[in-house]
Formats: sequence, structure tokens, C-alpha cells
Amino acid sequence: MTTTTPALAAASADAGFERVQIDRRDLRADDVRIDIRWAGICHSDIHMKRGEWGEALYPLTPGHEILGTVLEVGSDVIDHKVGDVVGVGCLVDSCGECAACKDGEEQYCAKGAVQTYGAEDYHGETTKGGYSGEVVVRDDFVVKVPDSYDESDYAGVTPLLCAGITTYHPLKENGVGPGSRVGVIGMGGLGHVAVKIASAMGADVTVLSRTDSKKQDGMSFGAKDFRPTEDGTAFEELAGSFDLLVNTVGSGIPLDSYMGLLDRGGVLANVGAPEDSLEVSAFSMLTNRRSIKGNMIGGLPETQEMLDFCGEHGITATVEVIDAGQVDDYYDKVVSGDVRYRAVIDTETLTG
Amino acid sequence: MTTTTPALAAASADAGFERVQIDRRDLRADDVRIDIRWAGICHSDIHMKRGEWGEALYPLTPGHEILGTVLEVGSDVIDHKVGDVVGVGCLVDSCGECAACKDGEEQYCAKGAVQTYGAEDYHGETTKGGYSGEVVVRDDFVVKVPDSYDESDYAGVTPLLCAGITTYHPLKENGVGPGSRVGVIGMGGLGHVAVKIASAMGADVTVLSRTDSKKQDGMSFGAKDFRPTEDGTAFEELAGSFDLLVNTVGSGIPLDSYMGLLDRGGVLANVGAPEDSLEVSAFSMLTNRRSIKGNMIGGLPETQEMLDFCGEHGITATVEVIDAGQVDDYYDKVVSGDVRYRAVIDTETLTG
Repeated sequence: MTTTTPALAAASADAGFERVQIDRRDLRADDVRIDIRWAGICHSDIHMKRGEWGEALYPLTPGHEILGTVLEVGSDVIDHKVGDVVGVGCLVDSCGECAACKDGEEQYCAKGAVQTYGAEDYHGETTKGGYSGEVVVRDDFVVKVPDSYDESDYAGVTPLLCAGITTYHPLKENGVGPGSRVGVIGMGGLGHVAVKIASAMGADVTVLSRTDSKKQDGMSFGAKDFRPTEDGTAFEELAGSFDLLVNTVGSGIPLDSYMGLLDRGGVLANVGAPEDSLEVSAFSMLTNRRSIKGNMIGGLPETQEMLDFCGEHGITATVEVIDAGQVDDYYDKVVSGDVRYRAVIDTETLTG
Repeated sequence: MTTTTPALAAASADAGFERVQIDRRDLRADDVRIDIRWAGICHSDIHMKRGEWGEALYPLTPGHEILGTVLEVGSDVIDHKVGDVVGVGCLVDSCGECAACKDGEEQYCAKGAVQTYGAEDYHGETTKGGYSGEVVVRDDFVVKVPDSYDESDYAGVTPLLCAGITTYHPLKENGVGPGSRVGVIGMGGLGHVAVKIASAMGADVTVLSRTDSKKQDGMSFGAKDFRPTEDGTAFEELAGSFDLLVNTVGSGIPLDSYMGLLDRGGVLANVGAPEDSLEVSAFSMLTNRRSIKGNMIGGLPETQEMLDFCGEHGITATVEVIDAGQVDDYYDKVVSGDVRYRAVIDTETLTG
């Protein structure tokens, strides 16, 4: 009892994506079927597909930045109706019973939240993500795209489902508001969204990027300052001048140098996920009682809150729209930092 | 215009302590002269004396856990009077003008707070610490020993001036109270005080110690549980079960194993200062949005607050009273973890 839908799938870590047909389950009472219009490419898709975070469940259909229109709803669904423009992020199920779920932090579910793709769900099926024509998702894991966006915004709204919430959470948790001194380390897919959101919150945002090649973009996204880090002068000139640093870089950075940029009580929020361990001197942290915080996306209530905030402030990711045949090439471009700033797949091209 | 007082001094990193006479300045208007009765040996004295944190200013007279009686006060001093029992901790001066000083966090003074020993003060003199008969300190850096203590408690009160405030700060900052689940990593000089203070705050305290040799002591200090870590079972059995871990170990620990013990939003407060970098996986921190916080002692107002709290709850450090001739031996004993639990020098033995 399933329907089929076109999708991209990788047969192994080394294989390229192929156009295939995948199954989607028939609706349960609490399910929503979504006609996917756009699917973002997140750096973690690449880690997963390439087996860099452990062996994946192949064939793998990635994609956890999903935007589309509701096609059909199960009999118990009341929050979503046919025709609604909706989003799906990194999670498609959780236990609903544990303290984390009750607090709206489903990503830390004690039973283990179900990831949108490449995971075994609670029914023993392997989840398949957004690089596809349709998806069926439990209603509680579907968020509403604010009415203030129009159709021309949708490709840019799509990356907010992961990059948006991943950066919104630490900004919110650390009380960013007017006058907050926020440094964003790295201005790629995550970083450029962090700049936009933090600026909209009223913060004075500085981008810390390896070179100044993205300076003009950074300033147009709302940054007050943009500093290349490769010559090291920024670490002296800006010592002790930030309340919060958001590290979006997925490879190792010289953490002690960055910690030196934090003022008293400052926090480095680490949202990048390098394979190698973070290394930091205890003295960097004792000084100015600094801390390093981790977080993993955000829960469903906060994801909706983030989308509503972005809708109010007209924030979208800056994207390159690509077709399904370009995904392999764009994986390499993402890794080399050549995408400005998030690639989004036009799902109308899935059938070639 | 100085007076002399007996002291211990080390001529170099490798030299033993010798009995010497050192100078103490004549009183300025805001100075307090203290007849030192007890001086604690902190692990950082050893790092400093041995040049492990960089070359020290020799001859070095360590000691930043100081308890004694006011002998004389300068003309402008109103908070302290002759005969008061007082303490001095890690700091003896700061600018008083910067945001940190105004917030009572003198240890993060923008000008650089003056350490109690081995530092050049704002007048160009090298500070000398508590392993001595008398000390002259600016009034604002002298705290009051609560009246609830009597003379037999004083040796045990002395280590609170560093070990007490260093562990009190993260307990307070992280909201420890009744029902908080606190793990104390390492039960030496710092750790045993952390157990006593956290227990008095109402927390459920678990000691995480390499072996169970100190178990009986740990339980008598107020711990609810005591787990040896060397066989690794504690890391499985206690996974995700703490709100706060206080790491008091001064050498490297397997941080990722410890991070796994933290529940959602849990914090590892690092008060140990190993020479090697801390190493932690980004994934250990993403999971359960965990964080690592550093802190360096506490400011003067919080030091007084800590002493008052300890006075109210009858908390003293558990000490071995030693004489001045035993300090070299005790440095080795501290490093090998053989002191139960803090060594305090009886300054009446300074003159041999």
C-alpha cells in the first residue's frame, strides 16, 4: 500500500546520484502528504552520503530542508490542510512522551528522534528525504510557511528548515538582541543565514571569514563588520570584543584564537560538526569565564518560531537553484566553499 | 620604609624552599596589615613555583589561601579593624574602574588584576604570598571570616579562599540547588570542597574518582554516590544523568566520556587547569546541547558570599596541618594525590 515518487538516490558512498522511483507510505491518520517543490543541500547530506559520519543506509535519498504544498491529510490531521505551503526539517518523528519531547526539544528525544532520511523509523522503515517528488510526514513534524512569503521566496525559505533553525537556536538561547556583539565564524550555508538572523535581532554582527572575498555579500546581509582571519590581525584587534561567536565551520579551526575574541562571560556556540575533536586550552576558558556550547538544530516549536521570525523580517537564504542532474557537482562545490550560499534542488527536474 | 617578616622562598623552579626574611610595605591609607596564622598549599602554587605555567618571578613566596588577624589598618580603612579575623585569596588589587571590577568580578579586570604572589603590582613591586608571617593588602581585597567559626576551624577555613570560591562559583552560576544532579570529577583539594558545598546547597552529589579509595570520605562529605571511573562502567550506568559536572582534575581526562554523563542542557564546569588542551568531539556537545564552561576563582563580593555560606553551613576544608619544613615534601604529595585533602602551613613554624 504505497505510492511511488521520483527521487535521487545514491547506491553507496562513492556512487553518484541516480534518478529512481521510491515508495512513500499510504497515509496514516496523523500523516500529511507533501508535494515537494524545493529541497536544500545541507553539508550534512554530503557527510552522510559519503559515509563520513559512519556507514549510511544505502540507497540513500538525502534532504532535510524541504518545502512544498500539502497534497493530502490523514483523518486525524487538524493543523494542516490541502494546499497549505509547509516545510519539513531534520526530524520526522519522536516519542512524544519523554521530557525532551514535552519541552518541544524533540531532537533530544530519549527514545531517539527519527531523522528525515537515512534512519530506521519506529515502524522499521528507512526514511528517505527531500530529494524527491513527495514525502509523507507525521503532522507534528510539519511546519507552516508564513503567508508573508510569496512563491518567489520559497526556494530561499527552504534552507531555513535546517540552516535557519541551527543558527537561530544559539542566537535565541544566548539572548541576542539590540547591541549584542555577535561574531559569525565562516559565511557559508549556515553562516550567511546566521548573519541575516542575528542582524534582524538587532545585533552588531561581524563576519570572521578566511578571506575578504565575501565581504560585499556579508555587509549586504546585515553585518556591521567583516574581517578576514588568514593574516591573524583580527585576533589582536578584536580581542575580548564579542558576547557570542557562532562557529559554522565544519572543519577544525584554531579555537584558542577565537576564544580570545570573547569578552567576559562570552560563549562560542559550535554548530559546525568537524570529524576531528575540538581542541581548546583550559586557560582560554578560565580567562573571562568563557564557554563553548553545542546544539543540534532546534525542536519543532522553535522551528516554527524561527520561520515566523524570518517571515516577519523578510529573511530568506541566498540560494543557487539547481536541477537534479547537478547534485553530484554541487556536492563538490559545497565542500570547496564555492556555493553562494546554499544550493536548492528544483524538484520539477527530478524526472529529467 | 618597610618591615620584615619571616617567609619561605624558592630561588628557582628546581630549588627547595628556604626560610628567609621578606619585606612588607608600610601601610598606605587603604592598606590592612595581617598577622598570618595559616596558609594553604594550592596545586597552582606548585605549577607556579615549578615554572609549569611559564617562568615565575623568583625568589617566589607562594600562597593565596591566607587566614590571619588584622594587626594594623591605614587611615582610610573603615571595613576592617585591628583584631578582626580575615582572609586573603588569589587577588590583592585591580583597577576598580572597568566593567568587570564594577561588577565585582575583579579577576577579569581589564587592566589585569594583581595576583597575590609572583606578580608585578601596580607600583612595580613583586607580590609575595601567604607562606609568610605578615602580609599587607589593600582593604578591598580582604574578606571577613564569619563569626560562626571558632579558632579550631581556622586552618580548615583557609583553603576556602581559593578552593572554596573556585568551586562555589560554578555551582552558583549554574543554579545548583535542591535536587540538582551534580557530579564532581576528582576529589582532591578542590573536589572535596566542591562536594561539601554542593551538598550544602541541597544537590544530589556523585563523586567520580579514579578508584574508590576515597569513598568513605566522599560519603562523609555529603555525597549521595561515589563511583570509581577506572573500569568505565560508571560512564554507561550514569549516562545522561547529570545537570552539572565540576571537573577539578588538573591533568587531562577523557572529556567525551564525561560529556556523555550530561543530560539535556548539561554543563561541564572546568576548574582544573591542565597544561594540555582539552579535547572534545563536537558531537558530544551537539547531543543534549551540552556545554563546557571555564571560570577562574570568583570576585571579592562572591568570595565573601561563599565564606558566609560556608560559615552558615559549618563547612571547612579537610586539612593536614604541616610545618614550614615540610612544604617541599608536600608539594610532591599534592602532585601524587596523597594529601587528605589540603595541606595548610602553620605559620608559627616559619621561624624554625
